[in-house]
Amino acid sequence: MTQQMSQSPRVPLGTVLGKPRTHGCGELRAEHAGQTVVLAGWAQRRRDLGGLVFIDLRDRSGIVQVVCDPRDGREAFAAAGEVRSEYVLAVEGTVARRPADQVNPSLPTGEVEVRATRLEILSAAKTPPFYIQDDLDAGEDLRLRYRYLDLRRAPLQQALILRHRVTKAVRDYFDARGFLEIETPMLTRSTPEGARDYLVPSRVNPGKFYALPQSPQLFKQLLMVAGYERYFQIVRCFRDEDLRADRQPEFTQVDVEMSFVTREDVLSVMEGLVAHVFREALGVEVPTPFPRLSWDEAMHRYGSDKPDLRFGLELVDVTDLLRESPFQVFRAAIEAGGVVKCLRAPGCAGFSRKEVGELEELARTYRAKGLVWLAIGQEEGGLRGPLARFLGEADLAALRERTGAQPGDLLLFVADRFEVAATALGQVRLRLGDRLGLIPDGVWKLVWIVDFPLLEYDPDEGRWVAVHHPFTSPRPEDVAKVMDPDFPAERLGELRASAYDLVLNGVELGGGSLRIHRRELQERMFALLGFTPEEARARFGFLLDAFEYGTPPHGGIAFGLDRWVMLLAGRPSIRDVIAFPKTARATDLMVDAPSEVSDAQLRELSIRVEEG
Amino acid sequence: MTQQMSQSPRVPLGTVLGKPRTHGCGELRAEHAGQTVVLAGWAQRRRDLGGLVFIDLRDRSGIVQVVCDPRDGREAFAAAGEVRSEYVLAVEGTVARRPADQVNPSLPTGEVEVRATRLEILSAAKTPPFYIQDDLDAGEDLRLRYRYLDLRRAPLQQALILRHRVTKAVRDYFDARGFLEIETPMLTRSTPEGARDYLVPSRVNPGKFYALPQSPQLFKQLLMVAGYERYFQIVRCFRDEDLRADRQPEFTQVDVEMSFVTREDVLSVMEGLVAHVFREALGVEVPTPFPRLSWDEAMHRYGSDKPDLRFGLELVDVTDLLRESPFQVFRAAIEAGGVVKCLRAPGCAGFSRKEVGELEELARTYRAKGLVWLAIGQEEGGLRGPLARFLGEADLAALRERTGAQPGDLLLFVADRFEVAATALGQVRLRLGDRLGLIPDGVWKLVWIVDFPLLEYDPDEGRWVAVHHPFTSPRPEDVAKVMDPDFPAERLGELRASAYDLVLNGVELGGGSLRIHRRELQERMFALLGFTPEEARARFGFLLDAFEYGTPPHGGIAFGLDRWVMLLAGRPSIRDVIAFPKTARATDLMVDAPSEVSDAQLRELSIRVEEG
Repeated sequence: MTQQMSQSPRVPLGTVLGKPRTHGCGELRAEHAGQTVVLAGWAQRRRDLGGLVFIDLRDRSGIVQVVCDPRDGREAFAAAGEVRSEYVLAVEGTVARRPADQVNPSLPTGEVEVRATRLEILSAAKTPPFYIQDDLDAGEDLRLRYRYLDLRRAPLQQALILRHRVTKAVRDYFDARGFLEIETPMLTRSTPEGARDYLVPSRVNPGKFYALPQSPQLFKQLLMVAGYERYFQIVRCFRDEDLRADRQPEFTQVDVEMSFVTREDVLSVMEGLVAHVFREALGVEVPTPFPRLSWDEAMHRYGSDKPDLRFGLELVDVTDLLRESPFQVFRAAIEAGGVVKCLRAPGCAGFSRKEVGELEELARTYRAKGLVWLAIGQEEGGLRGPLARFLGEADLAALRERTGAQPGDLLLFVADRFEVAATALGQVRLRLGDRLGLIPDGVWKLVWIVDFPLLEYDPDEGRWVAVHHPFTSPRPEDVAKVMDPDFPAERLGELRASAYDLVLNGVELGGGSLRIHRRELQERMFALLGFTPEEARARFGFLLDAFEYGTPPHGGIAFGLDRWVMLLAGRPSIRDVIAFPKTARATDLMVDAPSEVSDAQLRELSIRVEEG
Repeated sequence: MTQQMSQSPRVPLGTVLGKPRTHGCGELRAEHAGQTVVLAGWAQRRRDLGGLVFIDLRDRSGIVQVVCDPRDGREAFAAAGEVRSEYVLAVEGTVARRPADQVNPSLPTGEVEVRATRLEILSAAKTPPFYIQDDLDAGEDLRLRYRYLDLRRAPLQQALILRHRVTKAVRDYFDARGFLEIETPMLTRSTPEGARDYLVPSRVNPGKFYALPQSPQLFKQLLMVAGYERYFQIVRCFRDEDLRADRQPEFTQVDVEMSFVTREDVLSVMEGLVAHVFREALGVEVPTPFPRLSWDEAMHRYGSDKPDLRFGLELVDVTDLLRESPFQVFRAAIEAGGVVKCLRAPGCAGFSRKEVGELEELARTYRAKGLVWLAIGQEEGGLRGPLARFLGEADLAALRERTGAQPGDLLLFVADRFEVAATALGQVRLRLGDRLGLIPDGVWKLVWIVDFPLLEYDPDEGRWVAVHHPFTSPRPEDVAKVMDPDFPAERLGELRASAYDLVLNGVELGGGSLRIHRRELQERMFALLGFTPEEARARFGFLLDAFEYGTPPHGGIAFGLDRWVMLLAGRPSIRDVIAFPKTARATDLMVDAPSEVSDAQLRELSIRVEEG
């Protein structure tokens, strides 16, 4: 990435010492030797050595060594003596090749130095609370409080430069294809479902509140109703959720909607987008089309609707082999309508009880009642584990054939309802992939997950709810079933939606769906969800109104920009790709937000703080 | 603009009738005759004539006539009979030249029609509450309530397409010059000055509030401290102001900041930006550099710091000529330290009392105590107006020489404090320019206003306040005066700031300044503003902290995007260039925001509505 950074255009770099700044510090090479240059930047460090002063001068492009020799410039040398870390300097001087024994191969500019003829201190600096260096072990709270200093470090600068490049590539791609970027309101209406809204009291309309948008979903559908055909927006969204480690109360979405499209149209335009972004931002070619997995297949094979395809370790279903098993745990689960999923851990027969116990702990976190193991020893018949004594020779042979297990392997089983068994063992798969070093670096595995369930039964609400949202269209082949008033309620879980998620290396990049655009299908969906027409109107009134005035078939998608850039930048947290992020408690430590406000401000808004 | 619209790329247009949609309706021309096309769009209208059905089919690209003849397609003809206004249709057919006598020259596609072989109704529509046509006289409230229908009209679609093109041009320009688009927080801290903030209660931190940003001013300066050197952002900003006719509570800003720059650097980069946007969005070349007027000169000559240079009618100062005048109004004003400004209205000597009275009314609105007039008749000596009998022949000759007045002209005078006299007469100038038809169409007059006053005395607060903000740098030649503790307080109004506004046709497009980056100058500024160091810290703490860790010289600017697009689109209101605007009462009539929220939501936020 360092190389790409230095490609940033060199004009205009501004004016210092009354002259045009000629170069970025990090751009100087042996070929510049003999040139007079004008630089500006921050003093990374100063050393005095042998009657000379050496200053590492840093700007956005990198670092170069400046040498102040009284023979080159007496005043520059004198000024250099005042310089401390993070002083801002302007320097004029001559680029010189370093003697061979002083070349610094770890620095792109390490073959040269700048012999200063003029040096001016543009501003002084106190000693910073932590060093400005790439690998930094200062506490995160301190770094967030002094974010403007943390942002001086190259890894953060590179991440924000990459973010700029990604958003530019997204916009170029859509613009070239006739998509319009259209802004939607930030001060809008509290949404009828989804996460908690951030509210904004209205002063002009006392007692009323705006909500900040969780997404522009309704507006983008209205833009399709309004005939804009191809819309996108890179847009801030807000969710007042209980914050987990790597969530932010405000986040950025690449939001897209298209009219007159099939699922194929949407997926292929988005594949082009993703390939374009990889090419422009990283110089990486990702092949298109991306593979597709149905939700069923992803769950069966990987135990996840966002499978990491960088490694194998696929789950297999062994329910049929164990239906008659004397092992009570399996029999009971199968008789209750459940399944037995199995994962082969190659060469792991020697795992200790403790190691297996940690995997079982993980499976339990994901609601499995337990993790059954079977170690296959190197010598024939050397089975260990709770299942061993219940397995006849034929059973073992069938299991080995189904799973491909070899002597020295460990088999892991979860028996439960399908989704629980698959999900728990899918998490064990991820842990093992990591532990066994099966996840390669620098590999990008993209996959579409399609054909999600349309509805799922919510035992708390005692009704079927939309997996995506109530405007998501069923798959074309399921429309007739949805419209069929005699379709049995207990089979509603079989219906599939025209919804799709894009997954990169096991992380969901984005998701979307085709929407319902026919009124009779929409009304039937509401009926399945248990809404009366009046309830539907109360929840989604203006959108339903709009749908009555001529709605084109349409569909779209939204990508989480922060997460996408995080993956591309190879950073562990979205906080590393957001200039001014908030803590897990949703606070900004630098500006001290949120903060108390004056009584006068609250009075104007007709609200009062309720003491806890 | 119609022509530019049709340049939008033609792929991907999606899929209808199981086939790729081949064209936009508005793209079809005589050269397409004989081609089979697949179209989709809205029925603008349907007519039945001579056993045929004619449908005007409309999409984003324009309108084409579809003819349904039972001989071309029986089913298409039958379906066409069902079509009503705003139904959504898919059509397959053959492009045919119209007979010469049926060519419609007012339609770009008027030479052809599409003879439908297939026609499918994709969705039906109720009769809309108003017609979807270019010139619409429905009430604005109705149009805002059904915004998704109003947005179907070509003038609004063209305005939003133009807006897309402007933002794309802005981003391309900055990207090519090494500027990084960096997002700043929406949930931030209540600002210490400026307009009223929108507040957002924090659930996680009860009793505390975020504020929505009035501008990213502090963040962009912190990005300069953090070494990002060249920043821009197209960003939403919020002001909870008492709304005037054409203000919006949320608006969009093109925000820029640069390090290591002089004023020249900023102005020339921005001139390049504006010229690029005109070229890309309108195909218009505006010459650079733009003319510059000092604030003093703009006020003297045009009575405005945002002068409309599309016409002359310059003000002149006649104070010196009237210092000895027996006309008491003038003498008194001059003796109180005021001035007499004069405006020559060519050929207006015949204005009625009523006409002059209207101009005087306008001047009074701008705080003038009156408007003195002098009509110069066609025959020598034929003076009329209150001033006439106080003018000797020499006085008149001097006035005529100074103002260039000819027989038949009307001279208008305001005598008052300089700013009042200039501003009031400047408004009269604008009204006259309009009335006399002096303002040409299709002319773009750009001008920089520079050297604004640094400080102005606030009689309410009893202290000097910053005209721009306290971080604005004085002009280089005034720095020594600012630093001089003996500089007389009564002359602080003479100091000039390194601030600049860009004005287009009399409308402020944007403004900015170089910022103070040296601590001692910043401290002195605070002292002039009457702040103790403690007060300064309480108001601007974290920014002052940041400034102590090595701050580069920097400056920037912000443009009001909504207003800029409004001017380029030739629209009368910024509501015409915002997809989902709010009313003057800050409400969204379509989604019904702001709205009441549940008690549970308020309880979670630890706030209560205070009954009026």
